[in-house]
Parts: sequence; structure tokens; C-alpha cells
Amino acid sequence: MDWQTLAKTKRDSVNALIPPSWRLPSPVPPAAEQRNVTGKYIQQFLSPREIEITETDAVGIVKQTTVGSWTALEVTEAFCHRAALAHQMVNCLHEIFFEAALSDARKMDEYYVKNGKPVGLLHGLPVSLKDQFHVKGVETTMGYVGWINTFQGTTGTGKERVFESELASTLRRLGAILYVKTSVPHTLMAGETMNNIITYTWNPTNRFLSCGGSSGGEGALISLKGSPVGFGTDIGGSIRVPAAFNGLYGIRPSSGRVPYEGMANSMDGQNTLLSVVGPLATSVGALKLVLKCVLSQEPWLRDPLVAEIPWRDEQENAVFDIVKAGGGGRLAFGIMKTDGAVNFHPPVRRAMDIVVKTVEKLGHRIVDWEPPCHQKGLDLVFQTWLFDGGTDIHAAFALSGEPMLGPIASAYGTLKEQYTASQIAAINIGKRAYQKEYMEYWNSTSALTGTGRPVDAVIAPIAPYAAARPDMDPVLSDDPTAKYSMPSFSTIVNLLDYSTSVLPVTRADKSIDVVDSGYTPQNSQDEVVHLAYDPEIYDGAHVAVQIIGRRFQEEKVLALTEILGDALENHQL
Amino acid sequence: MDWQTLAKTKRDSVNALIPPSWRLPSPVPPAAEQRNVTGKYIQQFLSPREIEITETDAVGIVKQTTVGSWTALEVTEAFCHRAALAHQMVNCLHEIFFEAALSDARKMDEYYVKNGKPVGLLHGLPVSLKDQFHVKGVETTMGYVGWINTFQGTTGTGKERVFESELASTLRRLGAILYVKTSVPHTLMAGETMNNIITYTWNPTNRFLSCGGSSGGEGALISLKGSPVGFGTDIGGSIRVPAAFNGLYGIRPSSGRVPYEGMANSMDGQNTLLSVVGPLATSVGALKLVLKCVLSQEPWLRDPLVAEIPWRDEQENAVFDIVKAGGGGRLAFGIMKTDGAVNFHPPVRRAMDIVVKTVEKLGHRIVDWEPPCHQKGLDLVFQTWLFDGGTDIHAAFALSGEPMLGPIASAYGTLKEQYTASQIAAINIGKRAYQKEYMEYWNSTSALTGTGRPVDAVIAPIAPYAAARPDMDPVLSDDPTAKYSMPSFSTIVNLLDYSTSVLPVTRADKSIDVVDSGYTPQNSQDEVVHLAYDPEIYDGAHVAVQIIGRRFQEEKVLALTEILGDALENHQL
Repeated sequence: MDWQTLAKTKRDSVNALIPPSWRLPSPVPPAAEQRNVTGKYIQQFLSPREIEITETDAVGIVKQTTVGSWTALEVTEAFCHRAALAHQMVNCLHEIFFEAALSDARKMDEYYVKNGKPVGLLHGLPVSLKDQFHVKGVETTMGYVGWINTFQGTTGTGKERVFESELASTLRRLGAILYVKTSVPHTLMAGETMNNIITYTWNPTNRFLSCGGSSGGEGALISLKGSPVGFGTDIGGSIRVPAAFNGLYGIRPSSGRVPYEGMANSMDGQNTLLSVVGPLATSVGALKLVLKCVLSQEPWLRDPLVAEIPWRDEQENAVFDIVKAGGGGRLAFGIMKTDGAVNFHPPVRRAMDIVVKTVEKLGHRIVDWEPPCHQKGLDLVFQTWLFDGGTDIHAAFALSGEPMLGPIASAYGTLKEQYTASQIAAINIGKRAYQKEYMEYWNSTSALTGTGRPVDAVIAPIAPYAAARPDMDPVLSDDPTAKYSMPSFSTIVNLLDYSTSVLPVTRADKSIDVVDSGYTPQNSQDEVVHLAYDPEIYDGAHVAVQIIGRRFQEEKVLALTEILGDALENHQL
Repeated sequence: MDWQTLAKTKRDSVNALIPPSWRLPSPVPPAAEQRNVTGKYIQQFLSPREIEITETDAVGIVKQTTVGSWTALEVTEAFCHRAALAHQMVNCLHEIFFEAALSDARKMDEYYVKNGKPVGLLHGLPVSLKDQFHVKGVETTMGYVGWINTFQGTTGTGKERVFESELASTLRRLGAILYVKTSVPHTLMAGETMNNIITYTWNPTNRFLSCGGSSGGEGALISLKGSPVGFGTDIGGSIRVPAAFNGLYGIRPSSGRVPYEGMANSMDGQNTLLSVVGPLATSVGALKLVLKCVLSQEPWLRDPLVAEIPWRDEQENAVFDIVKAGGGGRLAFGIMKTDGAVNFHPPVRRAMDIVVKTVEKLGHRIVDWEPPCHQKGLDLVFQTWLFDGGTDIHAAFALSGEPMLGPIASAYGTLKEQYTASQIAAINIGKRAYQKEYMEYWNSTSALTGTGRPVDAVIAPIAPYAAARPDMDPVLSDDPTAKYSMPSFSTIVNLLDYSTSVLPVTRADKSIDVVDSGYTPQNSQDEVVHLAYDPEIYDGAHVAVQIIGRRFQEEKVLALTEILGDALENHQL
């Protein structure tokens, strides 16, 4: 079978799993007619009860399901329905397993009736998973046509449709309901989501734009409220970028906090810079809920790379105590207003201003963040991503003969020479030295904050733009003018292994965020970025910032995100 | 200058730092006449007061120094004197900086008098460091002639004799006194300690034998009580082997618990299997003291690879609570009696028997430990150590033209091809899979222990013999018959990243530990091991076992070691 037929068969077989009654009566109108398919648009296909359920956040849902006021079945049905609609609008799903989910939900309900208590802390909560998770009963393609009907490209392993990633099983033990796996760019190495199976996942709030990537399906699905919370992965921004582009909260935990064991991956075994797994959701509370629950399962006894660090209420409370104390006891934030290379788009600049003013209004301290050169760190990251010269990726494409799509081709199109052990060792030393240099810079801010401590977190954009325009965001490219992205903010976090959240701030508004007329770009990259801003196209796009904490400070980062999120509430709509 | 002259000049310059009054009146008699230079032998050169001080463990010392009953100066002087004697007996020092130490001690005393309180929790405690630590004022050769008068082989870095490793500075902040750096095998990749500068470090308890390695100088020095506690490193057994061979307690913490930042290393940048730093001492209490103190300094703010895990009293107390509860609440230990390949020497078998009987007498549970094949794991480790084909090591030898000594030459003599990124990735995946398999085996023992938990720790030998005989222990060799060591027990721990302590058990006794006459070796390696046992030569050698805990369970492992150590006390003399 040629790759086109294989891809189409797969695509059709997934779509066929949508019950007829959940099919859209007619295709979604083009973006020019219906830019935004969230909110009222998708609601028209749902019952009031379904809307009530699906527009409740994960914390609210488990409040109902764990005391038996909502059944797991009705919650699961509502999210399955909405996810099916979402997929028809923006192509955000790779796998659909509603039947299995409804069956699991029925068992949950039976358990509840019989025992008078929930199965676990996430009883009946639907959780979506990026298509790197292996889940019983379905396959994992990770967007590769060559992985269809295989286990990670190999047949006859005995693991096909049986093997389950550790975190998937952990979520089940907690009572969560698994029901869909979400779309990714093939290779995972892109900031937008496209592959030869589902084609392209659009940004549901603004269908002219990308939903981000690589956890793009998660971003799109949760934004449409087809899922209350889901798990993505992040090796260069892949949780934070789609969270930001879709107006969601998300967190990239430090490596070794959340179990990655048994996940499919790209370039698996590269261990200089590890991909991490983390949640995206519609509320900070949901992120905290799922992280706390996962850690309650002692994942360090199931994943050899997870550190024995339980959820630490005390780290979280330390933040709230400072805020409650008021007066001299304030928080301090580093503010990163520029990367020195490109001028941010007007909506991003405005979002940063809103956050800074909010922080100041709350009485916290602000310090200009002027860290070691990010480009120096990024050079290390980009080398890491090319250690095997593209061998793993080329092998995956060779399985089916499918072509690499745009941004991937520009990064990995040509097979390059592999790095040697000595070259890799040199990068590892360089990374450690960079981390140490950055750490000492962070420590040094204790002299500037007036709190007696270094900054509590750093506030920075994720990209110089709100959501990216399609095909304009190759992460790696030999041609610097080919990219208008600057992973200066997103990807540096991965090198530093910092726990970092996404805080939605506002939305692009063509009436406020006008073009910087007469602006003279400082360099070719700046010019590409500058020219890409079109207020008409960007209108309505989500804009977010990152809250960057130190390594293993997930509790602290979420507490800070909650505080700022509460203060920003009226801006986020 | 040729390497011989350079090495001799260095050796002489270090020896010249021993004050004339501390020089031995005549060379130590040969081993045949004076096998054991510890205890009474070395005491003859010390005053009663010096003996009192140096035979007090680290906990006892800080009890005196932190309340001002002993001055830092008298404690430092006593240990400097004893270390000087130790070095003259077994060649255990690479760097001597008594003057700087005495000056630091005087400042400590002045601080105490002025402020009425100690500088820190380790006020006035002499701490010895393996010659991988950079310490202000002295150089780091790591046993390489080519590193003399350089910073890690390079001149003009500005770091020579100025730069300090993070842990060295941390210890200073705590009030510790640094005074010597101890010997290592060049390359660090050997279980015995020899290089072209100090030649060979002998086992002070039995000078026919090796002191172990690579933290061999630490083992020898602390065994002679020329240091109450010191820090070594361990990538394949290098803390545990010298601790065991010298009748000491030691712990290999999991990677990321204790700061390694700024240390010299061999094959730096290989990050599949990281070397870790940890203490050796004359008591469990001393290990706990220094680890707890180091963690109190929040090393995760100084070393980007340290995880934010403070000392956890609760983990330690959980163990003591189980013991106190008695009755059904018991501990459970896995016992590893064989590696399936070689028959242990009689003293090692007896040591294991003593420990098992002790555990049973205490009422704890015993489970036969039958884990995944260790050889499979070791194959991964040995590949890791050859990633760069010997490039780093050859470069270090080329600096001076000095030759590789026996065990090193057999492993690294021939420069080999480097591993590629894909090959390294495959090893990383293999390692993770092995760790997971081992983890699941460990989890599975909950069905066997009767405690409701998996085993609390595993008790295993460190090697099939007590201390090694010189030149018989190449860690890596193309010729399997060239080695009589089996890193089956020591090195597997590094692959698994388990927190593992050494518990001294007994000493070889020629009247009890007789040769297995008529024994038929099962294979060539078993034959080499069998033939190496000579009760006359081994008489008096220390024998120890390991207490192997899971990852990041340092507190638990030390608690278990304390409990078993207390119960074994009468065997350890």
C-alpha cells in the first residue's frame, strides 16, 4: 500500500469512530467566514447539560464525580461528544476510543455505587493524551505514516495495541478516563502541528493561525473544551507553545518530576536534553490537581528517571505566606523585555506590559532580567537535536516513503554526519557550564530584589508573536531568514531544565495592536518577524507569558501562576 | 622536562611539605615484617592527645569544636601530623596544604572567641578530599604527570591554584578544614590506586594488598585515621571499594544528590553514567553528619545537576519507627549470595553469613535476591566507559608521555573507535530498560517479604574477594582471564543509580577462612578468582558488604547501615 492510501485509510478509520449523531451537519465554513470555532460556535452542537459539564474545569469536575453527583458516564459522554466536534473543526485527534472510555466510565460508576467511594482522586475525569502515549487498544503513530499498524515502526513486537505508557496506567489507577489521543507534527520537532495523516491542526480561536506544537492537538482540543486537561511533552517549548497559542495554562515540569517511562519519542536515547511530560488545562487548579495526583502514586517506583520528590505543599505555601504577610514581604520577578535580536509583535509587548503593571499593582518587586546570552545556550540545544544527524527521523520516514512537511524538511531534510562521543561530551560540558552561569546570574539578583532573596521567578514571552502563522515557524533551519520564530524564550528553558508555566494574558486586538509603522528592522530575522505581523490576521489570537521558576520548583511556579492569573482575570477573556 | 623528572619533582615537592619533626625516623619495614601499619603501629609516632583527637569520629569531633572545648587548631594539627605519617607509610596523598589548614584553623578559633559560636556545623573538622577536587592554593593532578603545573592539562586558564570545586567551598562555609588531597589511580578507572607520581597506595591494614580505588587514598588515609571523614567519587565502585577494603563506612549517593560541580574528572561530559561524589568515614554517624550539613547549604542553588531534595529526617525515622514497633513491623532485606559466575573467597562468604545471621537475629525478613542478569547490565556500563574510545585518556597521557600502568593499559592501552550518537542513544535506551526491569523486580518482592513492602534494601558483597591483590584487578580488559574482579556487585549499582552504603563486617582470618580444597572452578574467571585466594596473604584484610537502597534513599540506607552496624559491632574489629 502506498503511503497516501495508508494515511487515508488511517484517517478515515479514525473519523469513522465518530458516531453519526455527533457528525457536523455540514463542514465548518472557511476561516475567513468563521475565524473562531470555540465558545458559542461549538456550543450550538451541544446540549445545555453537555455545555455545563464540558465548561467546568477539572477541579470542578472531580468535585462532582468523586462525591457521586455527576456520573463518570455522563461526564465522559459529554467530553467525547465535544472532542468529536473539535476534531471535525480543527483536526486535533490521532486516536479515538470513545467505546472503551464509555465502558471504563460505566465500570467507575458501578464501583462508586457498590463501594460508596470513588476509584481515585481523578474518578471519572476525562484526560486527553498527546499521541506519544501508548494506550491499550489503540495504536501510536506519532504522525508517522510508517508507524501505522506497528509498534513504533516495528511489527510483531507483541506490544502493538497492548503496551501502555506508565503515566497512562497511573492516570487510570487514579480513576481518570482515557478517550482520545491528540495530534502532533511528525518528528515532534516543530512548533506547529501537521503530518501526512491528519494534515494540519488549526488554531480554534483563530483559524488563520497555527495551534502551536508539538502538543498542538492538546492545545486545540482543550481550547475547544473537548478535554478539561491533557498531557503533552516539551523538549523545546512543545507544551508551552500550544498552551500559549490557545489561551491555556500549562506547565513544563523539570525533567525527572513526571514519569516519561514507556512513551514513544523522536530521537529516543538522546539524553543531553530530555523531553518532559506535563499537563495543559483551562485552569491552574487543574494543572495542580493532576500533578499532585500523579505524584501521590509514587512514580519514582515505576519510572527509573523520576526523582523521589512528592508534592510539596510547603513550597506552595511559602509563596502564599509571603503574599499574605504583605508589607515588606513581597515577591520579586525578573522581567525579560527583549532578547536583543527581534522586536516583539505589538500584542506580545502589550501582554508583557499588562503583566508588569499587574505585578506592580500587587506590590511585588520587578527586576530587569539580563541573563547570560540566550543565543549561546540555544546553539547548544540545536546541536543536541542534530546529534544523530537525522538518522532516527529519516528511518521513520523511510518506513512508508512519505515526504517530510515544510518546517521539518528545512531542519532534517538532509541527512547529516553523526556527532561522535567526544563531540557530545563537549556539548554536555557546555550545557552544564551554561546552566551554572545562568544559575549564578539568578543567585546574583538577591542584591537587586530588596526581598533578601533572588527573584522568585522570571516573566518572559514565549515567542515574539502570538500564535504562529502556518509554515512560518521552522524550529531548526540552515537558512536563518526562513524562520520568524525565536526559540530564545521557549527553548532556553529546556536547556536550563527550569519548571515553567504558561499564563494566558490577553488577546490580540487589531484596534489596539497596530503595526509599528516606520519601524526599521535591526537584522534579517527581525525583519521577517516584523513583516509577519498583520493586525487583521492576528485579531483575536491568544497571547500569554511564561512564569519561569528554577529546577524542580513546580509547586512554587503554580502558586505564582495562580496569584498572577487571579489578578489578570479580566484581561484573559 | 621528561615525565620522570616532572613526576619526581612533584613527588618530592609534596613530601617536602611534611615538617621535619613529622618525618618517620626510618622507612617503614617491608610488608612481610610489618603487614599492618594502622592502630598501635602508627600510634607510636603520636602523642596521647593526638591519638585521642584523631581516634574520635567526626561526630565526636564537632561535638567538641562547636562548643569550644577543642580548638580547631589542635584538631587540625593532630590530623595533619597523622596524615603526614600515613602518607609516609602508604603513599596516600597527592597534595599537602598543612600551612593553609592551620591558618584557617586559627581563623576559626578567632571567630569562635570573638562571636562565641562556631562558624558552622562542621567547625574545625578536618575533611580530606580525593584529588579530583580543586582547592585554592594547590593543584589537581588526578595522578596525571601531564596535569602538573596546569589546570586539568591546560596552562594559562587563570584557574590554576585559584578555582575551587563547589563542594570544597561548601565545606569551608560549614567550617570544615581542608588540609590534604588524596591519591587516585591515573584515569580514575581502576579498583586500585597507582600512578606515575606517587607510584602505589598500599592497604594500611594489610600491605600485601591494594587499598582499592579509585578513591584509594581516601580509604588508606581514613583507615590510618589521618582523616575523620573524606570525600571520594564513584562511577563503578570507587567510593565503596576503598571503603570496603579499608574497613570503613562509605556511601555512594544517587547522582544529583551531592554537588559534583567544578570537579576534575576523567571522560568529562559522558553523561550516560555519571560519577557521583560521596563520603567515606570511620562511622555511619560521620557520613550522615557531612551529608546533612552539605544539604543544609541548598547545593541545588549552586550545582545545576543537584536535585532539590533536602535531608529528610522522615525517611530515616520511618526505618527506626519500624524497628521500634517490633512485632509484625519488620524490615526486609534481599540477600545476594552469588552472581552465578564466580565462587566468593571464604572471607566474603563468611561475612555474608555473619550479616544474614545478624539480620535474622534482629527478627527482620530475608528474601533471596534473584534480579535481572547483572552481566547484561555490566555490558552496558563497559560500553559507556569506552564511548570516546579512550580519546580523553590518551590525550591526558600524551601531555607528558608517561606510560599507562598495568590495569589501565589493559583497558585503555589501544585507542578505539568512538561511538556515534545513534550508538550512544541505543545504550541510553538499554540502560533505561534495564533500570526499569530491575525496578519491577524490586517492586515484585513485596509478595515475598511479608512486610507488605518490597525489600527495604539489598545486602550484597562488593567483590568476590576482600581487598584486591595488586595488579590483579583491571576493571576493563579485552582479555577476560586477565581480571579476577567481578564488578557484578559494585558497578551494577552505578548503572541503577542506587544509593548504596558500605558496612564493614569482619576481617579475613587464615585460621577460619581456609582454601576450598578440591574446588573445581566453573569457568576461567572463577578459576582466576579461586587461585587468587591465599589465606596467608589475606590474613587480617577487611571484609565488608553493601547495603543497596533505591534511588535517592540515602537517609534510609544510612539508617539501615546504622542498625546493622550497631548489631555487628563485635565482628568489625
